[in-house]
Amino acid sequence: MHRVVDLEHGVDILAANRKIASENRRLLEEHGVRGFDFLGSIGSGKTLIIEHLVEMLKEQGKKCGVVAGDVAGDDDYRRFSAHGIPVVNVNTGKECHLDAHLVDHALEKLPLADLDFVFIENVGNLVCPADFPLGTEKRVVVISVTEGDDMVRKHPLIFSQADVIVLNKIDLAEIVGVDPQVIVDDAKRIAPHVPVIFTSAKTGEGLDTLSRQLALL
Amino acid sequence: MHRVVDLEHGVDILAANRKIASENRRLLEEHGVRGFDFLGSIGSGKTLIIEHLVEMLKEQGKKCGVVAGDVAGDDDYRRFSAHGIPVVNVNTGKECHLDAHLVDHALEKLPLADLDFVFIENVGNLVCPADFPLGTEKRVVVISVTEGDDMVRKHPLIFSQADVIVLNKIDLAEIVGVDPQVIVDDAKRIAPHVPVIFTSAKTGEGLDTLSRQLALL
Repeated sequence: MHRVVDLEHGVDILAANRKIASENRRLLEEHGVRGFDFLGSIGSGKTLIIEHLVEMLKEQGKKCGVVAGDVAGDDDYRRFSAHGIPVVNVNTGKECHLDAHLVDHALEKLPLADLDFVFIENVGNLVCPADFPLGTEKRVVVISVTEGDDMVRKHPLIFSQADVIVLNKIDLAEIVGVDPQVIVDDAKRIAPHVPVIFTSAKTGEGLDTLSRQLALL
Repeated sequence: MHRVVDLEHGVDILAANRKIASENRRLLEEHGVRGFDFLGSIGSGKTLIIEHLVEMLKEQGKKCGVVAGDVAGDDDYRRFSAHGIPVVNVNTGKECHLDAHLVDHALEKLPLADLDFVFIENVGNLVCPADFPLGTEKRVVVISVTEGDDMVRKHPLIFSQADVIVLNKIDLAEIVGVDPQVIVDDAKRIAPHVPVIFTSAKTGEGLDTLSRQLALL
């Protein structure tokens, strides 16, 4: 859970977060590292998409680090580590999202001087991370057709703040009876300037498009 | 988002919530109404499962009301209303979960004297609702195989507080390459006394078992 106001220290948490996010941004820029944060519900495919991007960048000789955020456990940490890259696991306990302060500490543990990219995977949650920028260059919101066709209009804030929307598991759309165009139409209405990219992290479909959209390659 | 402490009124939000939840519970009991709340991520199938239960109960001559919680929109409200039952739509705005106070106001709008059951559908979120009991008899956590096989161990708190865990979209397990037994094993470890029921809200599989588990019929 998160607090708008920290009683003990009497500070505005959202303003404090924005300040630390700016510092994170500057820290990454000083090291020539490009940062991207990935949001989305549990099981939307954030981890697998980042794993693909890491491998695509590795083939180009680029070095990536990852910050893996979860309420509990080290599942994603272990998956990322298997790619032979530096990873920091952040367990938020009862908090429903990462914040810039947690990311600040995670960045301290990464060898930024040796890296080209840092990917940050937020806690699986389509509501809470919205108000907490982390200091990255772009924010990617990942949704899956298996979540139905109404997730965009149910969560207008987070989509309007996205830089890129990824509609994943597109290969399952027919099986789950979801028309991707409904989701695209909602996104166009709520976040008209945000591109929607169809992907299947399982088959690899759309990941080239995503990497071009993020200007990774 | 939610706050642990309400600065303006100087009260402990969690304790205040528990108090109102008890009052909700008493209100329902006074009217002979049985209350159930459903939690789970966006797209886990909460709405469709409740719709099935409402129809099953209707066939038995039982009357249901629903409280539909969402950050924004009235998608679920309209779906429930199509069943010809009283429904209250609760939009939480930036809040990531229902709380007992919101439910209290929603219950005021339902014709409790005419009802046998009230189903409450929480905001799609597997983290934040954990700490906020609403005053129901039982809490049902709905997950879907399409969310992967690690959602239980990533969110131990919410599962340990569940009365029933529903593993939905079981018909898609093979297609998405998820072994339900992994999820069941995690649940047994984290919440050993909580039954896990396999369902497919699409095909109707398992809904009889769920209704028996909840002693609805």
